[in-house]
Amino acid sequence: MAETARTPVSHRRPDGGPDPADPRSRYGNRPTMKDVAARAGVGLKTVSRVVNGEPGVTPDTERRVQEAIDALGFRRNDSARVLRKGRTASIGLVLEDLADPFYGPLSRAVEEVARAHGALLINGSSAEDPDREQELVLALCARRVDGLVVIPAGDDHRYLEPEIAAGVATVFVDRPPGRIDADVVLSDSFGGARDGVAHLIAHGHRRIGFIGDQPRIHTAIERLRGYRTAMAEAGIEVDESWVSLGLTHPERVARAAETMLAGPAPVTAIFAGNNRVTVTVVRVLAGLTRPVALVGFDDIELADLLRPGVTVVAQDAAQLGRTAAERLFRQLDGASGPPERVELPTRLITRGSGELAPAD
Amino acid sequence: MAETARTPVSHRRPDGGPDPADPRSRYGNRPTMKDVAARAGVGLKTVSRVVNGEPGVTPDTERRVQEAIDALGFRRNDSARVLRKGRTASIGLVLEDLADPFYGPLSRAVEEVARAHGALLINGSSAEDPDREQELVLALCARRVDGLVVIPAGDDHRYLEPEIAAGVATVFVDRPPGRIDADVVLSDSFGGARDGVAHLIAHGHRRIGFIGDQPRIHTAIERLRGYRTAMAEAGIEVDESWVSLGLTHPERVARAAETMLAGPAPVTAIFAGNNRVTVTVVRVLAGLTRPVALVGFDDIELADLLRPGVTVVAQDAAQLGRTAAERLFRQLDGASGPPERVELPTRLITRGSGELAPAD
Repeated sequence: MAETARTPVSHRRPDGGPDPADPRSRYGNRPTMKDVAARAGVGLKTVSRVVNGEPGVTPDTERRVQEAIDALGFRRNDSARVLRKGRTASIGLVLEDLADPFYGPLSRAVEEVARAHGALLINGSSAEDPDREQELVLALCARRVDGLVVIPAGDDHRYLEPEIAAGVATVFVDRPPGRIDADVVLSDSFGGARDGVAHLIAHGHRRIGFIGDQPRIHTAIERLRGYRTAMAEAGIEVDESWVSLGLTHPERVARAAETMLAGPAPVTAIFAGNNRVTVTVVRVLAGLTRPVALVGFDDIELADLLRPGVTVVAQDAAQLGRTAAERLFRQLDGASGPPERVELPTRLITRGSGELAPAD
Repeated sequence: MAETARTPVSHRRPDGGPDPADPRSRYGNRPTMKDVAARAGVGLKTVSRVVNGEPGVTPDTERRVQEAIDALGFRRNDSARVLRKGRTASIGLVLEDLADPFYGPLSRAVEEVARAHGALLINGSSAEDPDREQELVLALCARRVDGLVVIPAGDDHRYLEPEIAAGVATVFVDRPPGRIDADVVLSDSFGGARDGVAHLIAHGHRRIGFIGDQPRIHTAIERLRGYRTAMAEAGIEVDESWVSLGLTHPERVARAAETMLAGPAPVTAIFAGNNRVTVTVVRVLAGLTRPVALVGFDDIELADLLRPGVTVVAQDAAQLGRTAAERLFRQLDGASGPPERVELPTRLITRGSGELAPAD
């Protein structure tokens, strides 16, 4: 039985529970399956079996679990609205850039999951500033969201520990958290970049440029690692003039591309580290007379209608958002266990630009 | 002197003012320039002159205004943070679709203005559902935002009247509010569409299709009105089979385009009512052997690199957001006066697709 399709079981909290209107009661005191397991003196899996009506539990154990459920007022999935009585039925999403089209489908997917759970989604953007991220996260917590989906800008999230301890469900997406343990949903940046660069090598390229985002960003480093691995696997020594990390604004990226494409031994192919980079590289290459191959990480709108079409390593942004949001609601539904890291596969889509042979 | 570049003048509220921690004091009791004007028995412009240190006020009047300022504890621009003591230094933005790239630069511009004013931006999406819009707006108000920028999905905003009366600053953007009077910042949808269609007519087209968004959306109707006006001005009678309004998802738009392009007297040009429509029409036209002209409302990324480049009527999404947010902070700074409607011009960008001659 799929986790999201569990048979609803209703165990209503007895009267006299915390008052949902009292702000102090909103977090941290809703019993979880873990509490039930501890009180009943059984394992989590056993509680899960009883709650979900699965076989494999002795009548005596089932009775003990049921008593713990009743004593604690534990309750799970009956209707999304009812579920979060005592909660605010709202979740927060912290993005890093409101204008990056990659986050559009991701945000919308989070919103759709929230809506399916009867919850409201509130967004904000860190604008890739760690201080701003922290300010926004804490502001959303102060506004009593039940949980947070965070695309982190910073690399130290210990500021979130008190919130998580107080019961704010938290899932990171697109990039991992720093210095805390939490659920995280990522694309396989390393594997995707390695595949994309190997694809260029398979088409005869050896001098391949890599233009990526700032080195403090996890995905930038993972994709660079994929590039270096593919090159090493092909026995190609990377000339450091082929590698450029930095801001993804058009001026910086265009300059980096132009530099790699100049000189006596220019690159014959470029791997672009994300959609912002790809768009600018496409523009630079359109101004050249000789063909230069290109593979970009992230799909871009209309990539198939350009000539040549742009070959990309596509991530499923909507699936990232959906997976993260579903994990968040699973936490809110009382699921427990150690934080997990989910990595979604990428997909190479060949359209022409990545299949061009080297010009020389 | 530009309104946004006023010399900061500090008039601190005397001790004993409302406690910012008391939720009842957060709205509705911050004195405005209007209050100062009423108490001093002068006009608003006079108060503005005194506050901004502008000439043209007699010493006696200046003294009266200053006394009213001191008595009321009126205070304006010294630092953004200080300004909103007693406020929450946060504003809300309600979009209609998180995944529409048009709203990316708009959101980011609102955020930049908010940030420049020391305020946090919180977003949410109505997903083009009037009930959802209302739920989200009221949820943001309940979370004590100082003001709201709203891209409305619905056409009845009377539900906002109590919030506005309670002091929540409100500016609508992209589409006007329904059944209430409020500040609104729009693009000139009518004029832009008329220009775009006139451009096609000037290139020899007479059978011109119009594919737009749902008829309950203000911009869709305004752009259709622009189309009809341009056609009428050229003495062309519109065949109703050339006009299609509805959802902007790819299947519906592709079917509409294919229908107009079939038959014995197909359209030779299409005017696409927004970026979602344009992207699909580009895709449909790419599959044809004969050239069909296209002008789209809204610019789209990479439009210049397609062959032919896509001619568009561009709106400045960032400027819409910036203008709306600046008006919002002007309200929060105590500006008063009747609600205003600001209309920003559009710009025709010719790139090839709109300059194709009719195929027949």
